[in-house]
Amino acid sequence: MFSDIWIQEKNDEGFALGFKVKETLFSGKSEFQTVDIVDTYSHGKVLLNDGLVMLSERDEFAYHDMITHVPLFTHPNPKNVLVIGGGDGGTAREVLRHESVEKCVMVEIDKMVVDSCIEYIPMTSQVLKGHPKLELRIEDGLKYVSETTEKFDVIIVDSTDPIGPATPLFGEAFYKDIHKILVDDGIVVSQGESPYYNADVQKSLLSVLNSTFENSYIYNFSNLTYPGGLWSFTFASKSLHPYNGLETQKVKNSKLNFKYYNTDIHRSAFSLPSFMKENLEGLIKN
Amino acid sequence: MFSDIWIQEKNDEGFALGFKVKETLFSGKSEFQTVDIVDTYSHGKVLLNDGLVMLSERDEFAYHDMITHVPLFTHPNPKNVLVIGGGDGGTAREVLRHESVEKCVMVEIDKMVVDSCIEYIPMTSQVLKGHPKLELRIEDGLKYVSETTEKFDVIIVDSTDPIGPATPLFGEAFYKDIHKILVDDGIVVSQGESPYYNADVQKSLLSVLNSTFENSYIYNFSNLTYPGGLWSFTFASKSLHPYNGLETQKVKNSKLNFKYYNTDIHRSAFSLPSFMKENLEGLIKN
Repeated sequence: MFSDIWIQEKNDEGFALGFKVKETLFSGKSEFQTVDIVDTYSHGKVLLNDGLVMLSERDEFAYHDMITHVPLFTHPNPKNVLVIGGGDGGTAREVLRHESVEKCVMVEIDKMVVDSCIEYIPMTSQVLKGHPKLELRIEDGLKYVSETTEKFDVIIVDSTDPIGPATPLFGEAFYKDIHKILVDDGIVVSQGESPYYNADVQKSLLSVLNSTFENSYIYNFSNLTYPGGLWSFTFASKSLHPYNGLETQKVKNSKLNFKYYNTDIHRSAFSLPSFMKENLEGLIKN
Repeated sequence: MFSDIWIQEKNDEGFALGFKVKETLFSGKSEFQTVDIVDTYSHGKVLLNDGLVMLSERDEFAYHDMITHVPLFTHPNPKNVLVIGGGDGGTAREVLRHESVEKCVMVEIDKMVVDSCIEYIPMTSQVLKGHPKLELRIEDGLKYVSETTEKFDVIIVDSTDPIGPATPLFGEAFYKDIHKILVDDGIVVSQGESPYYNADVQKSLLSVLNSTFENSYIYNFSNLTYPGGLWSFTFASKSLHPYNGLETQKVKNSKLNFKYYNTDIHRSAFSLPSFMKENLEGLIKN
């Protein structure tokens, strides 16, 4: 169909995204998944795990702004942050822009993702080369959360889809451990899949969160390079509402600039199309 | 690349969307554009003009809800509505659900789009077969707005992209005529392209609106089948703010149900990512 070199992401239903490739920079197979990094004409460098687009240089700011700054500006004083997954480094990069953060622990299971991103996608991974506040651990996040004695203000689950290594990151045992290592005003935000293509995953993840946490919500943003564009993050907490107390002044005072995030977008992200409300009825507080 | 039959929409930059095809239902070439209707595995029937996806049965509700109900619930009492374009019928269908509407004039330039949709996509086009409040005119919308002596409460410009027949629908002469035929509390909402892929078109369209109307805004929604997913409509008025005075009760009283639209989504749609605010600085009141 395509007459020159393209990569494509096909979903089971018969929908595909294609990117014209300038050059394949890296192709490997770790014990967990395949890892490819290609340079594209339209979206800069693109990381794929098991053939699915994880990020592009063109729009990674949207994903990383929304997974990070929503919980970090909601929490009154986030000092200890845990990132599970996020091997490309973009989430850790955004976490470490917050002055209040004293320590960011990042637990990524796949060394090949970290190493290849450090080599080929410095835009997101620069921080992984070494940062005084970053503790980078190459290990199973599931094991880490079940064993650690540390406590966190914010936990970000920046996982791949619930196939392969990330499957348990959508389950109840994992979130019970997360609940244990969160402080009383702690927040956990997780990659929440597509409202159109993964409505069943959203429902099951929210069921887990709703039965484990006092408050569970879901919020949306737009990602250029994910199927359908509309994508979600879940937000669960023991006590905090996702934007009560959020002040524009607080964001201004941070002196941080964002290409996607702002306080209006933060609040609006929790407004859901009717079909999502219906799918998640009784499970969310939006 | 694709081993079986797919249709694809490629943009100039090297990005493509693909849909696996069950069956091609219609392929024609009018004096304005090519018109294709295919049945797909993932998205039901899909209409393409000049090879670009106009709608799919799976997600047309998002587009038609947001282009129609935002202006119709903002206006206090919309009686006369004009639709320019919208040959598939989905916008007229949604307009005619509002009890206050006494007359909907729909002006579509391309008879082939109307006829093929009536034949193959009844989901959107049923209403075009005949409705007591609908006046369907097959003619040039540009000519119609320059000559008509009627006045409208709401005008919806449901156009294709600014290539081919729709190009003048993004220009100043057209919007000066629109201004003339709108009542004092009138609203015009227009298909506003992609913030990522058509940032320059958005800027030029908003420049036109900003110089012609007292208030100009832009709002977003998510479309599964458009490149990148994030898509915009523009909103311009002589006096009305896009959601001052909007009440949940008003929408409830309408007894209409929507798969996408609700009052939260209506308000939130006007919250823009920072990169859009920057691109459109000085041209919008969002």
